[in-house]
Amino acid sequence: MIHRRKFLKQAGIGAAAVAAAATGFTQLNLQKKKERLGVALVGLGYYSTDLLAPALQLTKNCYLAGIVTGSPEKAERWQKKHNLSSKNIYNYENFDRIADNPDIDVVYVVLPPALHREFTVRAANAGKHVWCEKPMALTAAECEAMIQACAGNKVKLAIGYRMQHEPNTREIIGYGRDKTFGKVKLISVAAGYFDGRTDHWKQKRSMGGGAMFDMGVYSLNAARYVTGEEPLAVLAQEMTTRPEIYTQADETTLFQLEFPSGALANCATSLGMNMNYLHVTAEEGWYRLEPFQAYSGIQGATSKGTTLNLKIPNQQAKQMDDDALAILNNTALLVPGEEGWRDIKVVEAIHRSATEGKRVLIG
Amino acid sequence: MIHRRKFLKQAGIGAAAVAAAATGFTQLNLQKKKERLGVALVGLGYYSTDLLAPALQLTKNCYLAGIVTGSPEKAERWQKKHNLSSKNIYNYENFDRIADNPDIDVVYVVLPPALHREFTVRAANAGKHVWCEKPMALTAAECEAMIQACAGNKVKLAIGYRMQHEPNTREIIGYGRDKTFGKVKLISVAAGYFDGRTDHWKQKRSMGGGAMFDMGVYSLNAARYVTGEEPLAVLAQEMTTRPEIYTQADETTLFQLEFPSGALANCATSLGMNMNYLHVTAEEGWYRLEPFQAYSGIQGATSKGTTLNLKIPNQQAKQMDDDALAILNNTALLVPGEEGWRDIKVVEAIHRSATEGKRVLIG
Repeated sequence: MIHRRKFLKQAGIGAAAVAAAATGFTQLNLQKKKERLGVALVGLGYYSTDLLAPALQLTKNCYLAGIVTGSPEKAERWQKKHNLSSKNIYNYENFDRIADNPDIDVVYVVLPPALHREFTVRAANAGKHVWCEKPMALTAAECEAMIQACAGNKVKLAIGYRMQHEPNTREIIGYGRDKTFGKVKLISVAAGYFDGRTDHWKQKRSMGGGAMFDMGVYSLNAARYVTGEEPLAVLAQEMTTRPEIYTQADETTLFQLEFPSGALANCATSLGMNMNYLHVTAEEGWYRLEPFQAYSGIQGATSKGTTLNLKIPNQQAKQMDDDALAILNNTALLVPGEEGWRDIKVVEAIHRSATEGKRVLIG
Repeated sequence: MIHRRKFLKQAGIGAAAVAAAATGFTQLNLQKKKERLGVALVGLGYYSTDLLAPALQLTKNCYLAGIVTGSPEKAERWQKKHNLSSKNIYNYENFDRIADNPDIDVVYVVLPPALHREFTVRAANAGKHVWCEKPMALTAAECEAMIQACAGNKVKLAIGYRMQHEPNTREIIGYGRDKTFGKVKLISVAAGYFDGRTDHWKQKRSMGGGAMFDMGVYSLNAARYVTGEEPLAVLAQEMTTRPEIYTQADETTLFQLEFPSGALANCATSLGMNMNYLHVTAEEGWYRLEPFQAYSGIQGATSKGTTLNLKIPNQQAKQMDDDALAILNNTALLVPGEEGWRDIKVVEAIHRSATEGKRVLIG
């Protein structure tokens, strides 16, 4: 078995790849086919360091193969800690040379949102599959450019909405899809934390900061996955209790969504308070998760008396394994680029509604 | 003891009345002083029949002494069932003669909201204390007329917000007042039920129908009692999925409130869905009630692990006994007319915001 695996790995080919080739999988992708995908993390901040790197120790379908960082100090530290090959370490200038590195199959963009478009496009142009953290980008136009770059290069693009991979969340997505409690009528959802920082990029809207980009997309994404619909209109307000800090970005945003079925959502997000709940009113009952967005401990209840507390070892590992498997098998991603793009279209409408002080139709 | 009570009752005077007289309680009220107050219900619909009349069998400080109804058939049925004296039965025309009836101390107005002002003023002019169901009236001006009529006649005016008397609700009001979880930051609250009726007064705004007047005042009142503050501004929308029924009144209203401390509220109300929860985000934790507005079974939880499930035998009995005792002792009512008036001022702003499609400051 070891020999067979070794052979397949050296040949750059696996059973799944053969199957994929038979169904028309491209030569480009075929050449890259492996049993486990090599992932390069771009941007080594808190989320890469404390969440993704440890998760990549647990994944079955992918592993940490490289890093991209602007900090030589971080490069050295990560190389030692994760036993990375020198040739798999890039900085932002030489990053495009990753095209020639067969160890790297996936580039995971974990940079501030203002840099998502650039690095997604560069990674796609280098022939690498892309995983991109939320929010996908600052504008819908940027999202479209990212989707086009990936499609044009025949690579997959997944957005890091890990909650959609989480089992309790899958359960309530199923309730909506199967109408377990009848039609969804109203969603109340709130995602936020108290951010004591005053000069981080999360306080700068031009960098993709502010509550709506950071935590608001969780509220918005939840309203969308609970209903399974795209909102038609939004009415939003931005507020702050710390105007000296939130001069550009929103500290708090409240927004109301209207869906085609008549379902409504009352949503909140903030960098000024800790809040984390999702409550769904349906025709024949209710269900809730609290917290609905956390690195662990997602739990909830329903009007039928069900307790929701399915557990998985690691959310990020689940997300990356799901996405790696979809690439290996050339099947549909659970959360493709289009999913991030749909959210950002709504975020644009939310910003416009808050600016204009009135209801905005979502194009 | 029986002899003493009997004497005091015959003399129309009790220990509390003596104390009240010593502190300047009016001669008019002094003459009415009893150990238990006689209550006349005005309007014998579902709420009087199924909730208030049974509750008045349980009250200690008041009892059902009379009725006011436009239906001779109901008058006869109630007289038999509750063993009422013929002289304590009024219709809407001869109602003002209640002024001469010493059996009646309190008139409880349980009519559709459009009639609250008229019957409150008539009851006050008859020298009777008034309990008035929510919503207090259709406009703030009507509320002011009611408050003035009661003040001018030196009678008390209580609004039937029974939840403020409910012990789990009192508990969370205490959390806000005592800052048990720090400052209140965000309230999510939703109150609604599916109303299958199509031509009831609850579907007519001119009668005080619509979700906001009916159930929305529970959401609004909760946002106010949780914060202990008056909102400064509101942004609201009205929606319907049954436009053929909700031609005038709102089927569903979503509204966002801003409070002076910076606290915010995301509120919902509807006659198109069953929903009933109150979730409070505070600086140092959260607490919730679900249901927060029901005739029984109010329960909840907090981020400290507390379970809230204090029980009382009957909410309406508690409310009426509290209010009767405040009248007997001439102490402050828990929910005076001003409390209903403050809500209706906000309801007016909500209607205006929904009509104008923009944020409205609350005067």
